[in-house]
Amino acid sequence: MKLHGFFRSSASWRVRIALNLKGLGADHLPHHLRRGEQRDPAYLAINPQGLVPTLQDGSAMITQSLAIIGWLEETHPEPPLLPKDPLRRAHVRAFAMALACDTHPVQNLKVLARLRQLGLPEEKVAEWAAWANREGLAACERLIAGEEGPFCFGTAPTLADLCLVPQLANARRFGVDVTAYPRLLKAEAAAREMKAFADAAPDRQPDAE
Amino acid sequence: MKLHGFFRSSASWRVRIALNLKGLGADHLPHHLRRGEQRDPAYLAINPQGLVPTLQDGSAMITQSLAIIGWLEETHPEPPLLPKDPLRRAHVRAFAMALACDTHPVQNLKVLARLRQLGLPEEKVAEWAAWANREGLAACERLIAGEEGPFCFGTAPTLADLCLVPQLANARRFGVDVTAYPRLLKAEAAAREMKAFADAAPDRQPDAE
Repeated sequence: MKLHGFFRSSASWRVRIALNLKGLGADHLPHHLRRGEQRDPAYLAINPQGLVPTLQDGSAMITQSLAIIGWLEETHPEPPLLPKDPLRRAHVRAFAMALACDTHPVQNLKVLARLRQLGLPEEKVAEWAAWANREGLAACERLIAGEEGPFCFGTAPTLADLCLVPQLANARRFGVDVTAYPRLLKAEAAAREMKAFADAAPDRQPDAE
Repeated sequence: MKLHGFFRSSASWRVRIALNLKGLGADHLPHHLRRGEQRDPAYLAINPQGLVPTLQDGSAMITQSLAIIGWLEETHPEPPLLPKDPLRRAHVRAFAMALACDTHPVQNLKVLARLRQLGLPEEKVAEWAAWANREGLAACERLIAGEEGPFCFGTAPTLADLCLVPQLANARRFGVDVTAYPRLLKAEAAAREMKAFADAAPDRQPDAE
C-alpha cells in the first residue's frame, strides 16, 4: 500500500495511526501542502479534491481519511477501531465526526488561506483557527464526560482517539489552552504511551521539517 | 424515534431521507437555527455541539448526521445505503465526506455568522459560501465521472445521494451555477423521482417557512 500524505496533515496522521495499530505497512508518498504539491495535475487525477491523504492499494485509490479508515476496518478488522455495539459505534463515530467534519475542515490550510485572501490580518486568521478548535474540543469533552476511559471510549483506542490526537496538536499550535479539556487530555496521554501513536506523529515522518 | 432537526438544515435533511428510505417513522422536533434554539441549555445537554440533527431512540441519543445514518444502516439494514464490496463502500463514503466534512461545515450557518462577526460584508460572505460549494461539488463531479448511475453509485441511492441532494440545494441558494456538474444533476434527477427524497425536502417539513 502507498499513503499519499503530508507529515503535518491531521487527516494523514489519523490514517498513519490506523495503519500502525493494525500492523500494516505502507510507503509514504509526501505531498508538500505549503508548496501546493497537492494541486499537481497527476495528484488531482487520483484525488480531485487536492487534499491528503489518499490510500493506494494496487490500482485501488481511496480518498478521505475516515473512508480510508473505514475500509481498513472492514478489510483488516483486527484490532477493531470501532466497538461491536451499534449504539457505541455511533457514539464513537459522532465524536470522530465532530472533529473530522465540524472542526478540522474549518481550520485547515485551504480555509485559512482563503481568509487571508479575503484580507483578514494574520491575527484574525489565528483567532479563527483557535475558535474552531475550541468549539470542537469543548463539545468533545462533554461527549465523553461520562466515559471512564482512559481512551475516549473504553480501554482501547478507537476512531475517536485517532481523530483526537492530531486535533489537540492543532489546537496547541493555534494557542488554545487545552487544559480546559482534562478528559480529552487523559485520552491523549493513554494514546501517547502506545508505539502505534508515537510512530505516527508528524516529527517522526520522513518529510518532517 | 424522535429527530431533532430544522427544515432547512442539510444534515437533518440527509437523515430524513435515510429514515424515509428505510421506512422508519420519527417525530420531528424542530429547533429554529436562526433564532438560536439549538443553543438552549436543554438541547445542548443532548447535543453539546449545538447542532442539528440529533436522533433520539428511547433514552439513546445520537448526534452527527453520518453517525446517525451509520447507526440506522447497522440496525435497519434494508434497503442498504452502502454497497457490499468494501472498496465500493469506501468510494461512497469518500464522496459523502467530501461534502459532509469539507463542504457543508465550511459554509454552514455558524461559520457564515462568524465571517460576519469578523466584519466581512454580506457580498463576501455569500462569495465564501459559493466557493465552498463549488470546490466540493466540482471534486464530487470528478469522483463519479466513471459511474454510469443514474444515482451517484449505481442503480439505487446510497449515502452519497443523501449528501448530494441537500448540498445541491445549498449551492443553488448561494448562486452557484450547478449546470457545471451534469453527472451530479443526473443523480439528483433520479433521486427526485423517489418519494423518500421528495418527502424529505425542506418545504415538506412542518416547520417550513
